[in-house]
Amino acid sequence: MDCEGGSEPLLTGQQEPKPQLDTMVSTKSRKLRRCRSAPMVEPILIESNRSRFLEGPRSVFDEVNPHYKRVAVYLFIYLSISTVCFYLVRNQISGDKTYGILDSIYFCIVTMTTVGYGDLIPNSTVTKLLSCAFVFSGMILIGFSLSRAADCLVENQEILLVKALHLRQKPNSAELLKEMETNRVRYRFMIFSILLVVLIASGTIFLTTIEKMEIVDAFYCVCSTITTLGYGDKSFSTPAGRIFAIFWILMSTICLAQLLFAFAECYTESRQRSLVQWVLTRKTTAADLEAADLDDDGVVGAAEFVIYKLKEMGKINQEDISLILTEFRNLDVDESGTLSPSDIYLAQSTRKDR
Amino acid sequence: MDCEGGSEPLLTGQQEPKPQLDTMVSTKSRKLRRCRSAPMVEPILIESNRSRFLEGPRSVFDEVNPHYKRVAVYLFIYLSISTVCFYLVRNQISGDKTYGILDSIYFCIVTMTTVGYGDLIPNSTVTKLLSCAFVFSGMILIGFSLSRAADCLVENQEILLVKALHLRQKPNSAELLKEMETNRVRYRFMIFSILLVVLIASGTIFLTTIEKMEIVDAFYCVCSTITTLGYGDKSFSTPAGRIFAIFWILMSTICLAQLLFAFAECYTESRQRSLVQWVLTRKTTAADLEAADLDDDGVVGAAEFVIYKLKEMGKINQEDISLILTEFRNLDVDESGTLSPSDIYLAQSTRKDR
Repeated sequence: MDCEGGSEPLLTGQQEPKPQLDTMVSTKSRKLRRCRSAPMVEPILIESNRSRFLEGPRSVFDEVNPHYKRVAVYLFIYLSISTVCFYLVRNQISGDKTYGILDSIYFCIVTMTTVGYGDLIPNSTVTKLLSCAFVFSGMILIGFSLSRAADCLVENQEILLVKALHLRQKPNSAELLKEMETNRVRYRFMIFSILLVVLIASGTIFLTTIEKMEIVDAFYCVCSTITTLGYGDKSFSTPAGRIFAIFWILMSTICLAQLLFAFAECYTESRQRSLVQWVLTRKTTAADLEAADLDDDGVVGAAEFVIYKLKEMGKINQEDISLILTEFRNLDVDESGTLSPSDIYLAQSTRKDR
Repeated sequence: MDCEGGSEPLLTGQQEPKPQLDTMVSTKSRKLRRCRSAPMVEPILIESNRSRFLEGPRSVFDEVNPHYKRVAVYLFIYLSISTVCFYLVRNQISGDKTYGILDSIYFCIVTMTTVGYGDLIPNSTVTKLLSCAFVFSGMILIGFSLSRAADCLVENQEILLVKALHLRQKPNSAELLKEMETNRVRYRFMIFSILLVVLIASGTIFLTTIEKMEIVDAFYCVCSTITTLGYGDKSFSTPAGRIFAIFWILMSTICLAQLLFAFAECYTESRQRSLVQWVLTRKTTAADLEAADLDDDGVVGAAEFVIYKLKEMGKINQEDISLILTEFRNLDVDESGTLSPSDIYLAQSTRKDR
């Protein structure tokens, strides 16, 4: 299969680690330096983000990520279509109304975030089916685009947080980057926590002052909203409240979901780290050496040791290795067990002949 | 740090791949067989499940996973406490009531799944704050325990599905296992889809027959429930309906969430596969060889090639490798660049001396 052309766009936007990354691991021997020049492709989900991250703090605020633009366009299209739809059938929606277009946008947001207060209720077959369609598509939009965008946005704030936390030590940018890379999940958790507290406070204050709720009711309404519970006995009923709600509901529901997600990640990561620690510090036995000896020469080289330990850590599995070894054997034309430039030349000219 | 004792429980329940797995990759050379005997630790999140999975279809239904028992206990504790709480303050909950205890359980389920119809509404400070507490803890319970348990349960059904889909070819169990391992995510997606269709159909039929709704209203109520939207204009108002709702709401909301999650995983996996394919088939250049040459001997061994390609695929990063290489150098007492049994013996006796 010729993937040269077809799959290349996969790597667009990704780039090799910048030199400053090398300075991060300054204690490592010369043997390592070579390996570090290998292209490093981060897991797909966070690819564009991480490659930007590796560029260092300098360029983080330089430009708007094209990813955000795409998300903004999706959100705009979704809101436009759903608002127009609900506006056209506004007479078939009953409940607590203010202005036609404002209610339509508010109804969209309350529906897409699955808050569903029930202060505005579809009361015809058309509006009911429209709501069903828009709640599903809204969930998909939030789950697949908005949440990831929020995650990327928050990552930019990590730099400020790390700097603030290490203000006294005055670390250089390489140290900061290493610190962030190591504790990325923890910092994300902290930022989402801070953000959520701010959103809860602002929501509660707004509801008490503008919507004239009592403090308990306001807090209850806030909790009921951010968790997408939305009993609906307390909701935003004034025009000003609904304008605020449009932005606040979207932000706070995504923020809580991301906070829970970051919490789960923290837990997984800490267990993963214990496992790595255990794998690294447990006694290596003669049986381990025998199992790790990939090329069967009686001794275990650095690379063989790395593969053995990575497997033990669960970071890679046999299938990954098998696929690559098959490719290795294809390239190793002289069957010497090692690749040299002449192997590559021979292998590639043979391929062309076929 | 001595992790020998402290971290061992991490590996409890995990085990080395059983022999039948070896027969799966029968085309691989002898070089590989050794490596396959290395212990393989699966990612933490799915560990107990996957190790059971590797045992083959024989043992899947043998016993109840202790994981399920723990989840069942958590759910039981949560529902007991919240039901008792809401039952004690039942006079401070207004709305559409049937029997005290039934309404309390129903209210718990509607709250913990964040459906929040609003057909039962807390109308005192105590009940409002109780709802806030139970919606947060319910979200955490569903997100961290029930969803994972649902995932594990469904994985057992995969075997039946794979068998059904391959009935004509009559594959042996090793082939079945390989097929399942490769397309695990896709099968999970299929099973959750089937399950969701069954749940939507049963919910709609129930609402039309028992709750006497019209077909559109029933479908609208079903959609509004499984997405946790819960406007609340249509909900379960009869005693029979509420008994059904207790089980149905919990199952269907988790099912939809897991379906969306499986969908996201399918997408990520397919992109990951394209990347792997691209990395495997792209032309290897002399510059690649130089970068891959970890031990700097001018040629690239199989293990070095594997590490280089794994990095390119984004499966591992430099930090993983650096940590293991540090441990390698600690063990390599004679600094020969390879580990032999004598190195291990020397390294471990030196450690004890310290």
